[in-house]
Amino acid sequence: MNHDLSTVRHSLAHILAMAILKRDPKAVLGTGPATGDGFFYDVLFSEGNSVSPDDFKSIVDDMRAIVKKNLPFVKKTLSADRARELFRNNPFKLEIIGEAEARGEAITVFETGDFTDLCAGPHVDATGDIDLLSFSLKGLAGAYWRGDEKNPMLVRVSGFAFATKTDLVAHMAFLEEAKKRDHRKLGKELDLFTFSPLVGPGLPLFTPRGTAIKEALQREVERICRKYGFEKVFTPHLAKIDLYEMSGHKQKFGDELFHVASHHKQDYVLKPVQCPHHTQIYASRPRSYRDLPVRYMESEKQYRDEKPGEIGGLYRVIAITVEDGHTFCTPEQVKDEIRSLVEIIRDFYTALGMWENKWVSLSVRDPKHPENYIGETEDWDLAERTLREIADELGLDAKTCEGEAALYGPKLDFMFRDATGREVQIPTVQLDFATPKRFGLVYAASDGTEKNPIMIHRAILGSYERFMMLLIEHFAGAFPFWLAPVQVRVIPIGEAHRDYAAEVTARLKEADIRTEFDRSDESLGKKIRNAKVEKIPYFLVIGDAEVANQTITLESRDDGKVGELSVDDLLARFRKEGATKA
Amino acid sequence: MNHDLSTVRHSLAHILAMAILKRDPKAVLGTGPATGDGFFYDVLFSEGNSVSPDDFKSIVDDMRAIVKKNLPFVKKTLSADRARELFRNNPFKLEIIGEAEARGEAITVFETGDFTDLCAGPHVDATGDIDLLSFSLKGLAGAYWRGDEKNPMLVRVSGFAFATKTDLVAHMAFLEEAKKRDHRKLGKELDLFTFSPLVGPGLPLFTPRGTAIKEALQREVERICRKYGFEKVFTPHLAKIDLYEMSGHKQKFGDELFHVASHHKQDYVLKPVQCPHHTQIYASRPRSYRDLPVRYMESEKQYRDEKPGEIGGLYRVIAITVEDGHTFCTPEQVKDEIRSLVEIIRDFYTALGMWENKWVSLSVRDPKHPENYIGETEDWDLAERTLREIADELGLDAKTCEGEAALYGPKLDFMFRDATGREVQIPTVQLDFATPKRFGLVYAASDGTEKNPIMIHRAILGSYERFMMLLIEHFAGAFPFWLAPVQVRVIPIGEAHRDYAAEVTARLKEADIRTEFDRSDESLGKKIRNAKVEKIPYFLVIGDAEVANQTITLESRDDGKVGELSVDDLLARFRKEGATKA
Repeated sequence: MNHDLSTVRHSLAHILAMAILKRDPKAVLGTGPATGDGFFYDVLFSEGNSVSPDDFKSIVDDMRAIVKKNLPFVKKTLSADRARELFRNNPFKLEIIGEAEARGEAITVFETGDFTDLCAGPHVDATGDIDLLSFSLKGLAGAYWRGDEKNPMLVRVSGFAFATKTDLVAHMAFLEEAKKRDHRKLGKELDLFTFSPLVGPGLPLFTPRGTAIKEALQREVERICRKYGFEKVFTPHLAKIDLYEMSGHKQKFGDELFHVASHHKQDYVLKPVQCPHHTQIYASRPRSYRDLPVRYMESEKQYRDEKPGEIGGLYRVIAITVEDGHTFCTPEQVKDEIRSLVEIIRDFYTALGMWENKWVSLSVRDPKHPENYIGETEDWDLAERTLREIADELGLDAKTCEGEAALYGPKLDFMFRDATGREVQIPTVQLDFATPKRFGLVYAASDGTEKNPIMIHRAILGSYERFMMLLIEHFAGAFPFWLAPVQVRVIPIGEAHRDYAAEVTARLKEADIRTEFDRSDESLGKKIRNAKVEKIPYFLVIGDAEVANQTITLESRDDGKVGELSVDDLLARFRKEGATKA
Repeated sequence: MNHDLSTVRHSLAHILAMAILKRDPKAVLGTGPATGDGFFYDVLFSEGNSVSPDDFKSIVDDMRAIVKKNLPFVKKTLSADRARELFRNNPFKLEIIGEAEARGEAITVFETGDFTDLCAGPHVDATGDIDLLSFSLKGLAGAYWRGDEKNPMLVRVSGFAFATKTDLVAHMAFLEEAKKRDHRKLGKELDLFTFSPLVGPGLPLFTPRGTAIKEALQREVERICRKYGFEKVFTPHLAKIDLYEMSGHKQKFGDELFHVASHHKQDYVLKPVQCPHHTQIYASRPRSYRDLPVRYMESEKQYRDEKPGEIGGLYRVIAITVEDGHTFCTPEQVKDEIRSLVEIIRDFYTALGMWENKWVSLSVRDPKHPENYIGETEDWDLAERTLREIADELGLDAKTCEGEAALYGPKLDFMFRDATGREVQIPTVQLDFATPKRFGLVYAASDGTEKNPIMIHRAILGSYERFMMLLIEHFAGAFPFWLAPVQVRVIPIGEAHRDYAAEVTARLKEADIRTEFDRSDESLGKKIRNAKVEKIPYFLVIGDAEVANQTITLESRDDGKVGELSVDDLLARFRKEGATKA
C-alpha cells in the first residue's frame, strides 16, 4: 500500500527508537516527528550511553532488520491512568499525557513488536511497507526538551527518508552540491566578504572583490531604472523616532528597531526602511501634476536588530543594503508606472537568465485580520482591483495570495527558481494609498485642487547581501563576465614577459576591465590552475610569441582556448560581451 | 602715528561706550574688546533705555564727533581700593578689579575726555588718529556676562572697523557676496538638499540634483584613485565598541560617539571614522610583501553626536559622508605611496582650478603634550622625518605646524583659498605606524619574518557635505559643466516642437548627459530666463528651423549663443568638454 511520505517518515522515527532502545534499553524517549526531508527522535540516553556517527551504520542495519520483519503498527486507545502506568518512568511522555487529558483528548499508543510508543499516528500498516534503501541517518544534535533551555537537553538523532532510493540519492547529491555552492564557503575562497569579531556578527565587510560585484549590480540596476525615469537620492541612516511613528513602522518593527542615544536630548532610530525618508524629499517643495511622476531610487544600508541565533552569512544580516525605489504619481499614471516597473524587473532578470522560470503572486490583505494594515478600506479595494487588472493585462498569470500584502497596500511579488532548485522571492511592486496621506503629501491637480499622490514601492534586486548570496550559489562562484569580481587575469610565462604583460594590464584597466596581473613566481601550469580555481572568466597568457607579435593568447573559463588576438581586438570582443554593462 | 589695527578697534570700543553713555548715562558697561573685523561693547542699559539699529546712524555721528575732538587716551595706574571707589556702581568692573588684585596685577584706567574706563590698553594716542570713515556699526545681540547663562544678559553693540574706508567697503562687499553665495540659500533655490523636522537637524536629505553633484564628485575622485591602485570596499556603519577601544577612537571621541542599543545583549556604536573597519579587511587573510601595497577606498557615512547649537547647513552635520582611503605598505614603499597621494590631490584640485593657490602644513606633535597621541616615540620621530623629506623632495614648501598631528601620526595638510577668499583645509596625507600594531596587522616580509605594515590615511575631498558647501559657495551655484546637477535644458518654443525636443532629450540622456525637458507653458523668454536663473550650463532652443533641419540651437551660460548644431556635433562637443569625467 502507498503511504503519504510524512507517514513513512514518522513511522521511521518509531523504528529508529526501537533500534536505539536495543542499544540502550534505559534510554528515555522524547518525541519523534517527521521533518521536511526525513525524521528524528529526541532521546535522553542513560548514564554512560550515547551514540556517535560511527554507530550510524549499525543502527541503520538494525532499522532495516525491523523493516524486514514486517511488524504491524497496532493502534490502541488507553485511559489516562493506564497510559501513566505504562510510561511511569518517562517524564516527557507523562507531561504529554497530562496535557492531552486536560484537553479531553483520547490517548492512543502504537505497538510495533514489543515496542509501544505514545503517539497519535498515522503510520504505515506494517514496517515492511517502507523501502529498505530509501532512508539513512543524518546527524546528531543537542535539543532542549520542547526547545526551552530551562529543560533538560536530549540528543536529537535525525535521518533522511524519501519515497524511493532514487529520491534519496538525488537529495544527497543536492545537499553535496549546495555545500559546494554555499556562499559562506565560496565567499571565503573567492575573497568576497569577511566578518570580524571586533565589528560583530551580521555586519559583513565587503572586500574589493565583493565590492566589485555589488557595484556591478548597482550600476546595472541603476542603468535600467534611469531609462525609466528614476533619479538617485541620498539620505542618512538615522531619523527621529517621530518619522516612524508617522509612517507606522515603529509599531510594525517594534524590537527590530535599533535605538540610537544622543548626548543632546535627541534620540534617533536607525532606519529599518527607506520610504519615510523619501516622502520627506517629496515634501520639500510644492509639486504640481506636471512634475509627476517623481521617481526616487537609493541603494543604502538599513538596520534591523535581528536575533543573534538567526544571523548567518549573507542570508540574514543586521546591516542590509537595500536597492530601494519609490514612485509618486497621479491615479491616472498608476498603470503605466506599474507596467514600467514590471518591465524593469523583466529586463534585469532576463539578463541573469532567470525570467522564464518564475511565478507571480498578487499579495492581498488577510481579510480576517484588517488590524494588520494601515489605510482605508476603499483604497485597499481599489488598489487590489487595479493590481489584478494590470497583472491580467500583462499576462502575468498572478496567483492571489491572501495575507501576503504589505503594511500599507497590496503587491505583486515575483518568485524565481535558482540553479539549486530553491524558490527565491525578491522583486516586488507595491501600491500604497496610505503613506502619502499619513505624511500629508500633496500635488496641485490639473483642476486646481490639492490631491494626495499615490506611492508605489518597488524592489528589483532587494538587498545586495541576499542577492549576492543567491548569485554566488546560483553561479557556484563562476560569475558571468559582467559580474565577475576579477574579469581577466594576465599571466606572463617568464620574467622576460613581465613588462609587456604589465602594459597589457594597464590598457585593460584603462578600459575599465577588472584585470589582475599574476605577480607570483609559480610555474605556468600552476598560474593557469589558480585562474581556473578562482573561476576567472578569461585569462591571457603572454610569452615570447605574444611579446614579438604585440598580441595576447586568450583562454576562456567557459570555452577553453580562444587564440591569439591583438589587444584592440580583445577590447572590441569584451565591449561586445558587455564587460561594463552600465 | 600708525597703530596696529586691533589697537584702533579697541580704541573704537571706548569711543562707542562714550557715545552710548551720552544717550543713557546710567548704562552699566561690561567689557569692550577688539574682534576679527571690528569691536564691540557689552552694555546693561538702564531701565527703559536701549538702542535699536535705527539709532546706529546717530551713534556713529556721535563717535565721529569724538574722533574729530582728537581727545588723548591717558593711562593711569590706581590702587585696587581707589579703582573700587571709582567703579563702585559697576558690579562687572568690580569683579574684574577683584580678580586683578588677586593675581597681584597693576590696575590701570584710560581717560578720554570725561570718560574713564578700566582697561589694560593699548590704545591710539588720541581719538583723532582714527580714520573718520573706516568704521561703522554692525548689529545688536544678547550676551550673558562672561558667556555664562547664570549671569545677567547684556546688549552687545558691535561694529566693523578697518584701517581705511577702502578696506571697510571691500569687507562689506565680501559679506554681501558671501550672503548671496550662502550654500543654505543656494541649496534651497537650486533644489540640492533639504532638511525635515521629522528626520532631524544635521541630517541632510539630498534631492536628485544634489545627489547628481555628489555622484559626479565621487566618480571623479574614484577614477583618479583607481589609476593609482585604490580599490573600493564596503563596510557597515555599526561596530562593537571593542573595535574603537582597540583603535583608541573611543577615548578620542568620547561623547561624540553615538551608542546603539540592541535588544540582544550586544551594544554598538556608529562609526565615527572608517579606518578600524578597513584594518579588519586587511586582517581577513594572510598578506605577503608581494601583496602590498593594499589600498582601500570607501565613500560612506560616518556619524558624530555634534552639539545641536553647532549644527548648521552642510557645514556641520551629524551624518558625514567621508571619501576615505587607507594604504597598507612596507617601509620601503612609503615614499612612493605618499608621492602618489600628493599627485592624486594635485590632479583633483587642478581640475577644480584650486591647486595653484595653496600652502602645505607639515603637522607634527605638540611636544608639550605627548599624552595626546598613541604610538612609540621612535616611530613618531621616523614618521615626521620621512614626511619632511618627502615634502622637500616634492617642493611643497611645507610649513611645520606643531600640535596639528593626528592621534596616530604626523600629516601633510593642504590649504586652499576659495573664491570668497576663505581658507579651506581639506586634503591630508597621514602616516601611521601605531594602528597596524594595535590591531596586530602583519605581512610576511621578503626575509621570511613577520612585520607590521605602515598605514597611510588620506582624504582627497574630505566630507561630501562640506565639500559641496565649499563648491556651492565657490561657484556661487554656477557649477562647471561636469559637476552641474542639470547639464542641459531642452526648450521647445511651442507645442509643435515638443515631439522633436523630447527625442533630443532622450538622445542626450542616453549619452549620460543630465538633461531636463522644459514641459512648462511659459513664454520662450521666461523659459530662457528660468534656465539662466538656475545657472544651467547649456540650453537648447528648438523651433521650426531646428525641427526642419534636425538640429538644435545651443546657448551657453558662460559664452552666450553658440549656434545651430546637429545632435551628433553637440554630443561630440560635450564629450570633448568632459561631460562625464569618470
